[in-house]
Amino acid sequence: MEKEIWNHTQTVRAASPLICNITNYVVMNNTANALLAAGASPVMAHAHAEIEDMVSICQAVVVNIGTLDEYWATSMLKAARKARLTGKPWLLDPVGAGATPYRDEVLSQLLEHHPTVIRGNASEILALAKSNTSATRGVDSTAESRDAVDAARSLAASSGAVICISGKTDVIVGKDATWYIDNGSPLMTRVTGLGCAASAVMGAFIAAIQPAESAVCAAAALFSICGELAAVQSPGPGSLQVRLLDKLYNITEREFLNTLRIASA
Amino acid sequence: MEKEIWNHTQTVRAASPLICNITNYVVMNNTANALLAAGASPVMAHAHAEIEDMVSICQAVVVNIGTLDEYWATSMLKAARKARLTGKPWLLDPVGAGATPYRDEVLSQLLEHHPTVIRGNASEILALAKSNTSATRGVDSTAESRDAVDAARSLAASSGAVICISGKTDVIVGKDATWYIDNGSPLMTRVTGLGCAASAVMGAFIAAIQPAESAVCAAAALFSICGELAAVQSPGPGSLQVRLLDKLYNITEREFLNTLRIASA
Amino acid sequence: MEKEIWNHTQTVRAASPLICNITNYVVMNNTANALLAAGASPVMAHAHAEIEDMVSICQAVVVNIGTLDEYWATSMLKAARKARLTGKPWLLDPVGAGATPYRDEVLSQLLEHHPTVIRGNASEILALAKSNTSATRGVDSTAESRDAVDAARSLAASSGAVICISGKTDVIVGKDATWYIDNGSPLMTRVTGLGCAASAVMGAFIAAIQPAESAVCAAAALFSICGELAAVQSPGPGSLQVRLLDKLYNITEREFLNTLRIASA
Repeated sequence: MEKEIWNHTQTVRAASPLICNITNYVVMNNTANALLAAGASPVMAHAHAEIEDMVSICQAVVVNIGTLDEYWATSMLKAARKARLTGKPWLLDPVGAGATPYRDEVLSQLLEHHPTVIRGNASEILALAKSNTSATRGVDSTAESRDAVDAARSLAASSGAVICISGKTDVIVGKDATWYIDNGSPLMTRVTGLGCAASAVMGAFIAAIQPAESAVCAAAALFSICGELAAVQSPGPGSLQVRLLDKLYNITEREFLNTLRIASA
Repeated sequence: MEKEIWNHTQTVRAASPLICNITNYVVMNNTANALLAAGASPVMAHAHAEIEDMVSICQAVVVNIGTLDEYWATSMLKAARKARLTGKPWLLDPVGAGATPYRDEVLSQLLEHHPTVIRGNASEILALAKSNTSATRGVDSTAESRDAVDAARSLAASSGAVICISGKTDVIVGKDATWYIDNGSPLMTRVTGLGCAASAVMGAFIAAIQPAESAVCAAAALFSICGELAAVQSPGPGSLQVRLLDKLYNITEREFLNTLRIASA
Repeated sequence: MEKEIWNHTQTVRAASPLICNITNYVVMNNTANALLAAGASPVMAHAHAEIEDMVSICQAVVVNIGTLDEYWATSMLKAARKARLTGKPWLLDPVGAGATPYRDEVLSQLLEHHPTVIRGNASEILALAKSNTSATRGVDSTAESRDAVDAARSLAASSGAVICISGKTDVIVGKDATWYIDNGSPLMTRVTGLGCAASAVMGAFIAAIQPAESAVCAAAALFSICGELAAVQSPGPGSLQVRLLDKLYNITEREFLNTLRIASA
């Protein structure tokens, strides 16, 4: 399986898919740079007058609600709807799910357009699972992985999406299997928006690879491995942000396979 | 006093306060990264539908008017009002005060919500002091420090806020004393938004430390020292931005105390 | 000519012009940093209530439509109009021209205010030339340089602007001559917004140097040379972004003249 995952990273580079991103202001620069470093092409647009046209010329869509407002929420819904109607894969990054009622309301509307993938941290997945089902499990601010995996399975079943919970261990919940990727570095939590950048890169993978769960595993592996390798050389989070982009660009098969730690259950 | 200032930096790391930032587009990424590197947690949000909810879950608020417009000005006023009503410390960064009548009008409305701290450069503090009082002192585009200190004292008296004038020397004007911090590097003026990032970090300090003037001195010292240490190793402003984040993360007590130059009057 | 181009870079540093930028969210940070590194001062503003006041206090204006929407399009048009009425040079960066009808409509309105310079990649210049004239040449998604040069000449004639086509070779089309600059690095295409940053720096050059075609040649040369020199030392695109800023700040005359490859026709 490890070799297949590496091959997926090369497939993305060869396909160089065009990815339409509606994401937050904080991460637009490093998100676009992560896509370029991984071999894809980013488009950032949000005007109501063109967002559907932009979705039409792209191979996948990424919606990240980080700094949403009323105008942008409409853009996100237009993009998600267009992706659904034209059969393009799209990924939802539910940043801050559960933090405010407004976020949960917008997320609930976005879920109606059936995202192909949902990627978030444990708290976000727990919050989303709660608002999307009648489950009584509460949102735990000190979310544990085990709780989030159960929530992810419930969310996967109700939404039809592949779920990726990012954290110390990345967990990918597919239709019939669950994967655990033990790569990354604690220093990654001291750089803003690496989860958002991982989502963007994942958008490139679901554009180029099927089934979506294979694409998500490969993207999560690539991003966490590059973060891990970059962290070893970084005296702090400033350097990590720079070196992660370098590594997304120049990682070798040998580095990748020597570092990857994945298991399924 | 020097040891107490160092201890404050550790208090912030231990408390890891959640800071709600309404800031400008140019600096959102490095502002969030500065907060993370210093041990705090950033939240960036601005939607009218949720900004007050966000303020409720945070420990302090930072309002920076850099790229304001009508929608964002309302967000800023909502956040400032909520902070005042719930007794949370908040910091105002009056970017470009005096540059246009619109900025001065919005600043005047924000001042009605009694910021805990105001941090700006000499020109901005001079402009703000003029618009906030009936003082006849003009805004000097080649602002001198001495003029800004007087203006800061007048602004402190009329607003009740601690004032921090950043520049070659950072000056902090508190209720009964004034502090002068002689750290930093000229290269810092060649990196955009370092003042904005300093404001954000200051927001974390006023969330975790009282009185506010101690918090402001400690935050200004930390930021200028890290900039100074980073600049020594930097061939240019690109490297400085990266290394400043690294240093905010990995600075040692010894480096801090050996570099700090503070005096009061 | 080479020595004159170098001298222009020093003229910009000495003049330190204030440049008003209405640009896209993705690149605001590195665009502001590029201006600072090259010795100019950036202002980013867009509020309808102040954009004309901001243009009034600046020496040149840069309009980049990357992440435009209805509000920002109005800001851009106000800024362009004010620049025209007050006789200030302004540069148009038609990001994504031809990608959607909305972009072409806004670009068509912006062209009515007679930009001093238009800088884009080959596809964008081809798209713009088509929408601006009755030429029947189609927009080629695999745009060739020769086609873009002809389109640029047509666009220069119809708009009165100096045209800069950026790419492997930067081509500058002036009133009576065309220049070809063979600097840069393929790695630059893996960093987002370097074209946008080049446009911003070009804005500083047209503020300080006349005629505009000399300013554009000098800015394009400086930016591509710095990218080329930075790329040699960069293991990937993350490092390139950092080192390009360093090099814009610390490039020497010797490095510049040893690297510059310019020809006219």
